[in-house]
Amino acid sequence: MSAPPQAQGPRRVDAAALDRFCRAVLAAAGADAGTVDAATRAMLHGSRLGVDSHGVRLLGHYVAVLQGGRVNPRPAMTWPADGGAVAVLDADNGHGALATFHAVDHAVGRARTTGLAAVAIRNSSHFGPAGAYALAAAEAGMIGLVTCNADSYVRLHGGAERFHGTNPLACAVPVAGGRPWLLDMATSAIPYNRIQLYKSLGRDLPPGTASAAGGIDTVDPAAAQMLAPLGGDFGFKGAGLAGLSEILSAVLTGMRLSFEIAPMAGPDLASPRGLGAFVLVLRPQAFLPEEDFDAGMRRYLAALRRSAARPGEEVLAPGDREWAEADRRAAAGIPIDPDTEAVFRDLVDRFGLAPPAFAAAPDAASAPPGASGAKTG
Amino acid sequence: MSAPPQAQGPRRVDAAALDRFCRAVLAAAGADAGTVDAATRAMLHGSRLGVDSHGVRLLGHYVAVLQGGRVNPRPAMTWPADGGAVAVLDADNGHGALATFHAVDHAVGRARTTGLAAVAIRNSSHFGPAGAYALAAAEAGMIGLVTCNADSYVRLHGGAERFHGTNPLACAVPVAGGRPWLLDMATSAIPYNRIQLYKSLGRDLPPGTASAAGGIDTVDPAAAQMLAPLGGDFGFKGAGLAGLSEILSAVLTGMRLSFEIAPMAGPDLASPRGLGAFVLVLRPQAFLPEEDFDAGMRRYLAALRRSAARPGEEVLAPGDREWAEADRRAAAGIPIDPDTEAVFRDLVDRFGLAPPAFAAAPDAASAPPGASGAKTG
Repeated sequence: MSAPPQAQGPRRVDAAALDRFCRAVLAAAGADAGTVDAATRAMLHGSRLGVDSHGVRLLGHYVAVLQGGRVNPRPAMTWPADGGAVAVLDADNGHGALATFHAVDHAVGRARTTGLAAVAIRNSSHFGPAGAYALAAAEAGMIGLVTCNADSYVRLHGGAERFHGTNPLACAVPVAGGRPWLLDMATSAIPYNRIQLYKSLGRDLPPGTASAAGGIDTVDPAAAQMLAPLGGDFGFKGAGLAGLSEILSAVLTGMRLSFEIAPMAGPDLASPRGLGAFVLVLRPQAFLPEEDFDAGMRRYLAALRRSAARPGEEVLAPGDREWAEADRRAAAGIPIDPDTEAVFRDLVDRFGLAPPAFAAAPDAASAPPGASGAKTG
Repeated sequence: MSAPPQAQGPRRVDAAALDRFCRAVLAAAGADAGTVDAATRAMLHGSRLGVDSHGVRLLGHYVAVLQGGRVNPRPAMTWPADGGAVAVLDADNGHGALATFHAVDHAVGRARTTGLAAVAIRNSSHFGPAGAYALAAAEAGMIGLVTCNADSYVRLHGGAERFHGTNPLACAVPVAGGRPWLLDMATSAIPYNRIQLYKSLGRDLPPGTASAAGGIDTVDPAAAQMLAPLGGDFGFKGAGLAGLSEILSAVLTGMRLSFEIAPMAGPDLASPRGLGAFVLVLRPQAFLPEEDFDAGMRRYLAALRRSAARPGEEVLAPGDREWAEADRRAAAGIPIDPDTEAVFRDLVDRFGLAPPAFAAAPDAASAPPGASGAKTG
């Protein structure tokens, strides 16, 4: 069997170099300092942890929407409501990462007093990996829960058409002396990018995860027109969770429901998409002594990680896979797929910037982009 | 094909009569007035809405644990912590329904000031249907989120042994002029009682929902020793949600993790099981004007309910099925399965009470107990 190009190993870039490159590009595109910081931080979260669908492959898109008018490159964010444990942030159609990191910071600060705090975000935009924001809360010693809705792509249980977006739920919990417990999941069975990936790999989709016209399930990525909700025969659960996300992200914020959101890819890159999002932060020490919370998390995770696995499989806590990939990429560099590399070259030419330095020799040390966890070759 | 006894229709009892009977039994068993109220309310929620696994079939069990010592029939609940938006309730090993309704009431009251409020419950016990408590918040005009953990019965993704409990997540959202949106879901693929039901019906389980020894999936209910997490091939999502429940219910409360909880069925009915639970309430008007929230929920639900369904299927919002069943049972009475009827007879004899009046003629007007939504005959 001839090895596909991927098996040679993708081209890699050091995280620090990627960070500098993203910053330079976003600044050149007219983004203010806060946007440069936040968007880069969010993309690097994705690329460092192997959530490549929401990593630096988004850089070109973000430039397009910042310059196109959909995303305000210099927003003046305001707080239309702020009292007790609840605040509302108006993101002034700025970058979703700027708004959501800001919302988490605010909620963390408020939760120091109230024990828990929520921020509903209005007039925002695509925020990339939901887990980045949950993680920001955990890095501040708090439990973070984050959700947003997205343009329709997921059918309902028994449904024949696109309805909800992939509507992710992310939660991060601090673990003393270790990396946070980190769950970042679409409420569809699989994320949107999986269809593109399997199409490019010429592979069948897992059964029950995607549907063709009329909601009829298909394993052919070329025929897939929508995703199925998590749960297969029990997809009412995934659809219910997507609905919870919809209610918190769009109803509670007064923003657009999934089927009211213009497509992310365009063609309209000029009009704000009117997205909402929701952030909730809990301070463990408001509930019990810190040492008891820490001991509980340790006891729970120790039991989980030593519990018996099925033959040939492994048992992991949420986040374990991502942290292992982050370690591999910290050592070997971040893999950049050819399409993204082409986008980078275009940005370099357009803005007259230095390209990020690619590693000299390709290698297969870790998962190629988009296939984190999947075997190569 | 000869009709099984179920097709004759189960025996039915009027909800009001069932309510009176439960109260009389619990009082005779020594439960205080608050416990009688709360446990009856929770069981009737289950039986009215068709969540029969957590309906009046639990009455005999509750009597056993109240008299046995596991559940304190006259608890003195206290508030070890109460400030800002967070409170901690010590249930004094009383009935989980008493504690959890009390926690919701407290959170609803606090959320009027703070916009959202959470209560972590300690030293509690089995609380029946999580949805009853989420619904209590919605009936007060607020969004309610409720979770608890339970004794181990669900394997991890890739796991070979029982680890988490069925760890339900429930959420209820008020809908002006309509019944609340209501999601009440175990984080396993199917609830525990489904195994018993399919065994008694001689049917195969749905694939990927249960496993035999070693975590090897099985469709034979007689071989099933554990449940699989929601999601099948993507069971890391269901396991992650079970973990979120575990962290909120047991780590944040300082109570027992699922694998530390003694089995519900016994043999020990004398020792408190040390359960925790978690309740979160959000006040929509803290986020946006009430009329905007109401309009958003209306718009969302209208679009959902009119969206296209696959041939032969229907699209429902969370709660729609339960409310339809509640309407059928309000008209036809609540079906009581033979085992539960036998338990009732025993309680009648033991406590010298009048039995609840059963409907004169059996009928098949609605789903027999435990098979809500499944076709009979």
